[in-house]
Amino acid sequence: MNSSIIRYILGQVLKVFAILLLLPCIVAIVYREKEGLAFLGIALLCAIIGILMTIKKPKDNVFYLKEGCVTTALCWLIISFFGSLPFFITGEIPSLTDALFETISGFTTTGASILSDPEALSNCSMFWRCFTHWIGGMGVLVFILAIVPLSGGSNMNLMRAESPGPSVGKLVPKIKHTARLLYGIYIFLTLLQFVLLLIGKMPALDALNTSFATAGTGGFGVKNDSLASFSPYIQWVTTIFMILFGVNFNAYYYLLFRDFKKAFSMEEVRYYIIIIFASTAIIFINILDSCSGIFDALTHSSFQVASIMTTTGFATTDFNTWSTTAKLVLVMLMFIGACAGSTGGGIKVSRIIVLIKTISKELNSYIHPKSIKQIKFEGKTVEPETVHAINVYFTTFMIIFVGSIFFVSLEGKDLITNFTAVAATINNIGPGLELVGPSQNFSHFNPLTKFVLMFDMLAGRLELFPMLILFHPTIWKDLFVQKATVRRLKKNSKSKQ
Amino acid sequence: MNSSIIRYILGQVLKVFAILLLLPCIVAIVYREKEGLAFLGIALLCAIIGILMTIKKPKDNVFYLKEGCVTTALCWLIISFFGSLPFFITGEIPSLTDALFETISGFTTTGASILSDPEALSNCSMFWRCFTHWIGGMGVLVFILAIVPLSGGSNMNLMRAESPGPSVGKLVPKIKHTARLLYGIYIFLTLLQFVLLLIGKMPALDALNTSFATAGTGGFGVKNDSLASFSPYIQWVTTIFMILFGVNFNAYYYLLFRDFKKAFSMEEVRYYIIIIFASTAIIFINILDSCSGIFDALTHSSFQVASIMTTTGFATTDFNTWSTTAKLVLVMLMFIGACAGSTGGGIKVSRIIVLIKTISKELNSYIHPKSIKQIKFEGKTVEPETVHAINVYFTTFMIIFVGSIFFVSLEGKDLITNFTAVAATINNIGPGLELVGPSQNFSHFNPLTKFVLMFDMLAGRLELFPMLILFHPTIWKDLFVQKATVRRLKKNSKSKQ
Repeated sequence: MNSSIIRYILGQVLKVFAILLLLPCIVAIVYREKEGLAFLGIALLCAIIGILMTIKKPKDNVFYLKEGCVTTALCWLIISFFGSLPFFITGEIPSLTDALFETISGFTTTGASILSDPEALSNCSMFWRCFTHWIGGMGVLVFILAIVPLSGGSNMNLMRAESPGPSVGKLVPKIKHTARLLYGIYIFLTLLQFVLLLIGKMPALDALNTSFATAGTGGFGVKNDSLASFSPYIQWVTTIFMILFGVNFNAYYYLLFRDFKKAFSMEEVRYYIIIIFASTAIIFINILDSCSGIFDALTHSSFQVASIMTTTGFATTDFNTWSTTAKLVLVMLMFIGACAGSTGGGIKVSRIIVLIKTISKELNSYIHPKSIKQIKFEGKTVEPETVHAINVYFTTFMIIFVGSIFFVSLEGKDLITNFTAVAATINNIGPGLELVGPSQNFSHFNPLTKFVLMFDMLAGRLELFPMLILFHPTIWKDLFVQKATVRRLKKNSKSKQ
Repeated sequence: MNSSIIRYILGQVLKVFAILLLLPCIVAIVYREKEGLAFLGIALLCAIIGILMTIKKPKDNVFYLKEGCVTTALCWLIISFFGSLPFFITGEIPSLTDALFETISGFTTTGASILSDPEALSNCSMFWRCFTHWIGGMGVLVFILAIVPLSGGSNMNLMRAESPGPSVGKLVPKIKHTARLLYGIYIFLTLLQFVLLLIGKMPALDALNTSFATAGTGGFGVKNDSLASFSPYIQWVTTIFMILFGVNFNAYYYLLFRDFKKAFSMEEVRYYIIIIFASTAIIFINILDSCSGIFDALTHSSFQVASIMTTTGFATTDFNTWSTTAKLVLVMLMFIGACAGSTGGGIKVSRIIVLIKTISKELNSYIHPKSIKQIKFEGKTVEPETVHAINVYFTTFMIIFVGSIFFVSLEGKDLITNFTAVAATINNIGPGLELVGPSQNFSHFNPLTKFVLMFDMLAGRLELFPMLILFHPTIWKDLFVQKATVRRLKKNSKSKQ
């Protein structure tokens, strides 16, 4: 494995990360908060380490999918670690495990919190907490790609490892261009929401933080009751923007280039909208009796459906008290998730569509054994390898899911808490049901459970395999043993000379 | 579609079924019960209908997988219907829906009961209830194949549609021979258990019924508390025989022909045993404190693990009161299920092994992109088509599972009841947790839920697709419209002559 290029990219990541850490410092200056010093300190630390790691350029630019996966996984682990230090140093989250949990939850756009009173956070920490969603939403490495020059085929393999969904659409031939374009759309939509929230008289910092958390489909709320105490206008704006950020960004690309026909004929987006409408309708009927009116029921049902399906995780009400059917619909949406190529998590609508089409094809083959009907998606034939990859993804997902529940269950909490805690983390949503319901938080779990859930958040965000690969023994042998061998060989050859 | 051969086979089935219905009549004669008349009446009815259906031989012996699936599905629906009538006529199960539920639960070897007091049943009805397990365990059509002459390629397609597991092992070239051999092993093991239970001083009829319910991995108990009130000896005998009936019958075939090496090197059986031991160990540790001693804890843990993993569903204790971890292990075992080619249900150990091997292969392909590592199972390379079929099976299973939970949830019962009710029926186990726990029954559900669960039991037993095919519109068009068209065409041509 080419460990020198991995080292180099990680160094670049840390340098950019140091700059990002200066943003909460600005917030601290505005609000005259001493907590800003912690962010400044960590920013300096990251800058120094980053510079040290990038002094020596990699000799070799060979960069395969394996390197892409390892780099991505390590990158997310490293920024999560450094990103959590300010919370710990300021004492706002006294336990390092908890600080790490909160930060991973932020970067992976999960939004599962260990804080019982987030309003007690300093403004700069609250800003950082929501800003992690925004960075994580589009992808840390995509961001790096957009601004840092990287040579060779490394870009595609990095992007493939980090992007949500079955395949990276090659929208524009040059990856760097694509990355910039995506970030452009992302920034535009975030700003638009920010302005609309300001119009709704939301305080400026709250509006900014909420926009960050919506854009990344993260879901950290600025208030203890998430968005429940804000006006229906603000809730509706958030509903609409959650749905917008759950759409496959390819659609916006087509819109940008005025290819309206292509934008509105996207199969995945169509099914995504249909599922949102159908689920909202079912839940609306289910909760109508317990709400104060039709508008109230419509606000809550559409908000919660958008929040869970896009895997954001905001709440306007404690849906844990809803009927079984309504709760079950939400749990089903947790697994379906948003569109591929959006900032949302879950299995993704496109994968579900292909899986269902595979079943329908199988049934047809029983009836017409001679017909070789190919699966079509978005107007194109889906290659058998893609179908296989989606199948393997689904199986892997289920096995990680079940395994995680087993470890979480060792704590002895009830089955629904265990089930939805894992579902809410591996799908990057945030709240689940019962003890992890919207009015609760994740602080009551023991460290083992927290680490399992942290793994699930990262695995869910990075599409499983980059995280799994870290557990493959050959990777570590490659990274360290091989390097040591090379060094020893070099030494030997030098001493012989 | 060749509907005349379907009609002919179903007629044959009904004739054999009429003979089987005479067995409870014999029990009724022994115990001088008037309920036997109901069985006699239905036997006569089946015989008459069967004879009428087989008067005209099919002109055409063409019989594809489509016909195999439709025949199998219809066969199971028909015998379930006629099999349920005696319960309804004698008034022992006053609701026809409930009687149908109990009978489908019997034939599919599920063992989920709507009876709160099974001990109140007459001896002949109790015999029939457990005997349905025994018939359903090996497969109704396999039984027909063993005794009725059928020509052409029909046999393989019938067996393929009815046998549990990914593929029918072609043990002996001639299907009929295989079917007889399998039934031979089946009868021998059932008799062996019967004798061992008699030695344990179990009353003769109870011993016979329990042997039937164990052999089919069914799980209808002869007592209200299942096997809790019987002696540890009887419980241990049942534990061992449940495990034996969950083994791939190929292993016994190899033993029969003294191919010990092959018998003991079967990968699926090895993993099956390992899972049983591991699960028993985990549960043993978990329940040790709440049991009256090591032996007691070992008896309960091994019994429950064997009962759930083989999808039998007997109980010696109310495991709904166990710890979350212990319950979770049982729920996981529900889905894994027994070996392929056994009488047990669930996803099957072999499928799980192949699925996990596929994931491991995928991970390896990330690390060594050029290595085309094939998946090996039982010493042979697994064809990509088989892997695909297993993946599709798994996806279909999950989608039927989730869809069923949605319909069941409309009743408003708690999530765990809904989840385990569907898990216990689609995997053909019997009891679940909470309101469908081992000390409860399924009578409290409304008819819609019961029909969903009946579908799940049949879908689970027949490996999903034969049941799904019945919902495909072309099948019904083929069966009825086509026939009508042919008739009309014949009429027209006659009138022209």
